[in-house]
Amino acid sequence: MKIYGDSNSGNCLKAKWVCDHLALPYSWIEVDTKGGGSRTPEFLKLNPFGQVPTVDFEDGRTLAQSNAIIRYLARDSDLAPKNAFAAAKMDAWLFWEQNSHEPYVAVCRFHMVYLGKPASALDPNLVRRGYVALDQLERALGQSRFLVGESFSLADVALLAYTRLAHEGGFDLVRHGAVRRWIAESEAFLKLAPAR
Amino acid sequence: MKIYGDSNSGNCLKAKWVCDHLALPYSWIEVDTKGGGSRTPEFLKLNPFGQVPTVDFEDGRTLAQSNAIIRYLARDSDLAPKNAFAAAKMDAWLFWEQNSHEPYVAVCRFHMVYLGKPASALDPNLVRRGYVALDQLERALGQSRFLVGESFSLADVALLAYTRLAHEGGFDLVRHGAVRRWIAESEAFLKLAPAR
Repeated sequence: MKIYGDSNSGNCLKAKWVCDHLALPYSWIEVDTKGGGSRTPEFLKLNPFGQVPTVDFEDGRTLAQSNAIIRYLARDSDLAPKNAFAAAKMDAWLFWEQNSHEPYVAVCRFHMVYLGKPASALDPNLVRRGYVALDQLERALGQSRFLVGESFSLADVALLAYTRLAHEGGFDLVRHGAVRRWIAESEAFLKLAPAR
Repeated sequence: MKIYGDSNSGNCLKAKWVCDHLALPYSWIEVDTKGGGSRTPEFLKLNPFGQVPTVDFEDGRTLAQSNAIIRYLARDSDLAPKNAFAAAKMDAWLFWEQNSHEPYVAVCRFHMVYLGKPASALDPNLVRRGYVALDQLERALGQSRFLVGESFSLADVALLAYTRLAHEGGFDLVRHGAVRRWIAESEAFLKLAPAR
């Protein structure tokens, strides 16, 4: 399988981390989204929505949406709880990541890293809502080792992607000790070099 | 089970529709989100994130996030494909709905219906991106009867919720014949009165 992704995108790295952890063979095709690489006619043929990551299974099947991709790739692995209710709790985090965390924490980083804005020029409403998300993570991770109980799951993969890069979006995790503990444990679980 | 929801919220209605279709018994607890009903100490005890819908299974377990809820409730039903790859395609729509459709189509409606703005006062960027999402739905629904092939699935439940109310957010579906055909078929499948 080929993973089309931008290595600067946390969403894309989720797919890479899952493949690496599960030892699934893949080739990584770098897409320069900043330079328009996800808007070329060739790429739009693969994914008409023009979004990365996109997986090409080379039998004509393709799959987009980072959280759908990791859910599919890891469906029978130790990264996805067997118990239906625990899996539902994992799903709730995956959807929450997309609607309540990524639009603030990742978007602030996008404005700073991709658009070159200083932190002082960020939309204060995005920053405020980013901290709301980080505070909610802090509360959850003060109660259990990982997001779905004591075992690392796809919920941790999805939330780790941009939380470990929050400082690049101007967020200060000094008040978020449980989040910092969880970032370190999750990076170690996935054998990633610490993001900072 | 109790579903805490706001009947004006498409996200909340997804859970109701799935329960009604599958004949799952539930009681609906109306939460007036506009009046702060999801921010009371009692509600925050149920869901510290202050979001509806929230399901209370009455054995101490609760579940939030509309798409995680319907995925759990319908997990062994005809609304969820048995084939793993078809289920992944359904998931891709569920995540896309939350990150590329709801933040524009539902948010424009929120500004008009909840905040009382006229269509002319909507953020043009939200409107533009709402039409991008509707155009993408039009392309997909020009190719198959429902979003995941020929069978109605949770992908249709999730996307129907706000697409059928798009006009309340100022969107005109005159160019979107396939979307209008699909809204009518989906409403008929779920035995809903047409939204317009």
